[in-house]
Amino acid sequence: MRNIKLTVAYDGTDFHGFQVQPALRTVQGELEQAIHKLTGVTLQINGSGRTDAGVHARGQAVNFHTSSRIPVEKWPIAMNTVLPADVVIYAAEEVPPTFHSRYDAVGKVYIYQIDQSLSPDVFMRKYAWHVPYPLQLDSMREAASYFTGEHDFTSFCNVATPVKDKRRTIYDISVEPDQHILRIRVHGSGFLWNMVRILAGTIVDVGKGRIAPKQIPEILSAADRTKAGVTAPAHGLTLDKVMYDKPDGTQ
Amino acid sequence: MRNIKLTVAYDGTDFHGFQVQPALRTVQGELEQAIHKLTGVTLQINGSGRTDAGVHARGQAVNFHTSSRIPVEKWPIAMNTVLPADVVIYAAEEVPPTFHSRYDAVGKVYIYQIDQSLSPDVFMRKYAWHVPYPLQLDSMREAASYFTGEHDFTSFCNVATPVKDKRRTIYDISVEPDQHILRIRVHGSGFLWNMVRILAGTIVDVGKGRIAPKQIPEILSAADRTKAGVTAPAHGLTLDKVMYDKPDGTQ
Repeated sequence: MRNIKLTVAYDGTDFHGFQVQPALRTVQGELEQAIHKLTGVTLQINGSGRTDAGVHARGQAVNFHTSSRIPVEKWPIAMNTVLPADVVIYAAEEVPPTFHSRYDAVGKVYIYQIDQSLSPDVFMRKYAWHVPYPLQLDSMREAASYFTGEHDFTSFCNVATPVKDKRRTIYDISVEPDQHILRIRVHGSGFLWNMVRILAGTIVDVGKGRIAPKQIPEILSAADRTKAGVTAPAHGLTLDKVMYDKPDGTQ
Repeated sequence: MRNIKLTVAYDGTDFHGFQVQPALRTVQGELEQAIHKLTGVTLQINGSGRTDAGVHARGQAVNFHTSSRIPVEKWPIAMNTVLPADVVIYAAEEVPPTFHSRYDAVGKVYIYQIDQSLSPDVFMRKYAWHVPYPLQLDSMREAASYFTGEHDFTSFCNVATPVKDKRRTIYDISVEPDQHILRIRVHGSGFLWNMVRILAGTIVDVGKGRIAPKQIPEILSAADRTKAGVTAPAHGLTLDKVMYDKPDGTQ
């Protein structure tokens, strides 16, 4: 048995999220079906984490064990021939037997895209949140800076989040305009349910002047979801990258 | 009656082209329905030209005459509230009564996008032709240079093209890589049926080494469609801009 790690991109528009759900179209479901088509084996893959319905990925990571003789470098093209067009394998590598794409992940990068055009950019309508109002970039950057470091993110996750320990570390967060698209890039140790969408929604609320940047520390310490801003819509969010300690996926 | 010119963007994926066809979903059909919803009047708009099924636009131009009292600056937002998400009005202006978006057009810019990634960029799959082979950029640029100026483009249009005079002028043509996306930008006086797609397909054939750049002049003078390269797929093509002599659309 070899342990294969795949780097997966998907357009989340037509998926009910990453994780398998009975009778619903999911990314995990499509990947497992494709592996079944190639190997004849029904198995369960490990994802680095779920993504919500409508959320996209450029660099989701998954792994699975297989006795298939398909050479590792052939996995992307083999999978891409059997996968639907909205899921694409970008890379494959063989990883040590104990590697697990969720437990071994040491960081993730998410990108939240905001379309600042007055009329929506028709080619970005599924990948960016259309916010046709002036946003104060300096205030947004000041607000973002308060999130770096280790914090309890109870105010910035879905109230139904099941995990108890809501401390997470954000290594870096930036707000960068690229023509009419504003990108919020967040690199962190890991993220709670809806966390990036609430961070993005709150930063946009700051940009609109609804929340002052210097309120962020008190919102964090309140540990109360109602104190933070809106949950930005799912379709603006992309899981850009999942980090592991070594290039080969080991720690 | 006022004459209103609209700048229209659309994602051509789910359209049977620009021009109205009975019982099929077309961009013109959606625009005329939207105008009907806003004004109660059934009318026919003039487009600057057709685009094939699957072809996109960032800057298609249309015009129509209306006695509606909607102020001209409100037309984009009014139309966008009644249009489907894959057609967006970017701008509106009032033009002189005799202005006609087709007859008064003095130039057009088309952009053809090629995705050079090994595995297709999932977010560009509907907007770029996936060509995962090495392409010789210098040869493509040399080939492109032969197209500038006035030529008979019989070799570079669909054999069923109805117009007799197939001379057209290309003012400028460039081939520019932008990370993994290669863009062919063509600015010309006007274009024949499938002309940009055959130009793009031929330039890609040159990039692959199937056609030598210096063969282009003889392919042009042969006036024979079979001498040119393949017709590149529709989904890589975008009508970027339609030019008029004055900013207000008059000549």
